[in-house]
Amino acid sequence: MNEKNDQVANHAPVLISPNQMLEHWQGHRALTRRVIEAFPEDKLFSFSLGGMRSFGDMAQELLAMAEPSAKGFATGEWEELDEASLKEKSKDKLLEAWDRHTAGINKWFPQIPVEHFQQVIKAFNTYEGEVYSSLLYMIDNEIHHRGQGYVYLRVLGITPPNFWER
Amino acid sequence: MNEKNDQVANHAPVLISPNQMLEHWQGHRALTRRVIEAFPEDKLFSFSLGGMRSFGDMAQELLAMAEPSAKGFATGEWEELDEASLKEKSKDKLLEAWDRHTAGINKWFPQIPVEHFQQVIKAFNTYEGEVYSSLLYMIDNEIHHRGQGYVYLRVLGITPPNFWER
Repeated sequence: MNEKNDQVANHAPVLISPNQMLEHWQGHRALTRRVIEAFPEDKLFSFSLGGMRSFGDMAQELLAMAEPSAKGFATGEWEELDEASLKEKSKDKLLEAWDRHTAGINKWFPQIPVEHFQQVIKAFNTYEGEVYSSLLYMIDNEIHHRGQGYVYLRVLGITPPNFWER
Repeated sequence: MNEKNDQVANHAPVLISPNQMLEHWQGHRALTRRVIEAFPEDKLFSFSLGGMRSFGDMAQELLAMAEPSAKGFATGEWEELDEASLKEKSKDKLLEAWDRHTAGINKWFPQIPVEHFQQVIKAFNTYEGEVYSSLLYMIDNEIHHRGQGYVYLRVLGITPPNFWER
């Protein structure tokens, strides 16, 4: 917890504080983790609809963006975007990587100075925009693909976790 | 534009200002509108996968929450949640209602005092939480269902609008 970023405790009139946004993001990531878990091992990287990617491949894309972005927002240092970072496409390896990123995000995010969220950056040395806008894009992209994962699960006859439980 | 809510112009250290959040939300709503438009008329309220609802019915749910919430956040007055407000299930009527809500949101949202976003309310006299949290829930719910609409479109052989264009 970064006390300077705990704007709400300091009675600043903000829509949302950095600590609240971190909790919001990690709540979504916890739900996405449960969606990954809900897939049968043999469907996670193989099943898809309408010529789209498997949910496992989508989740790999989300991983590629998450922790490196939190680090980039905090430090200004950007790695190359690597959407195929898993050495082995399995549910265990994906969940392991997911948990590693969860810890990494919890480390980097509180180091983002509040003033930084309005600055224009080039995420992954490519995507230009304000930090807040890149951050929302990443969360939105996760919700978007996870919604697609819900359809995959339903078509597979599996009840997905409740959307409102984080 | 509510000038008091234009925190960024006033150099307040915020993650996101109310005006930026309004623009973010309306950007998503503009994309959802294009997804509605992309559906063939005869599929919008009939096609579905895995026993889920049609995208037209999901869009009706989104409509039921959007403008009434913006009004509720601003005034504290809540209507009953009405998820079947369209008198006629057609693309034209849905898009008409969508545009009416767009204007309504643009009217109500700037009237939400900045201080209000951290207050705990009961949205629709039912769902308890901070205003910022209810607001994000609503936007997230739209992205979630729209992602599902993308799968419907792909399975119908239709290329959806680009996710990153708002």
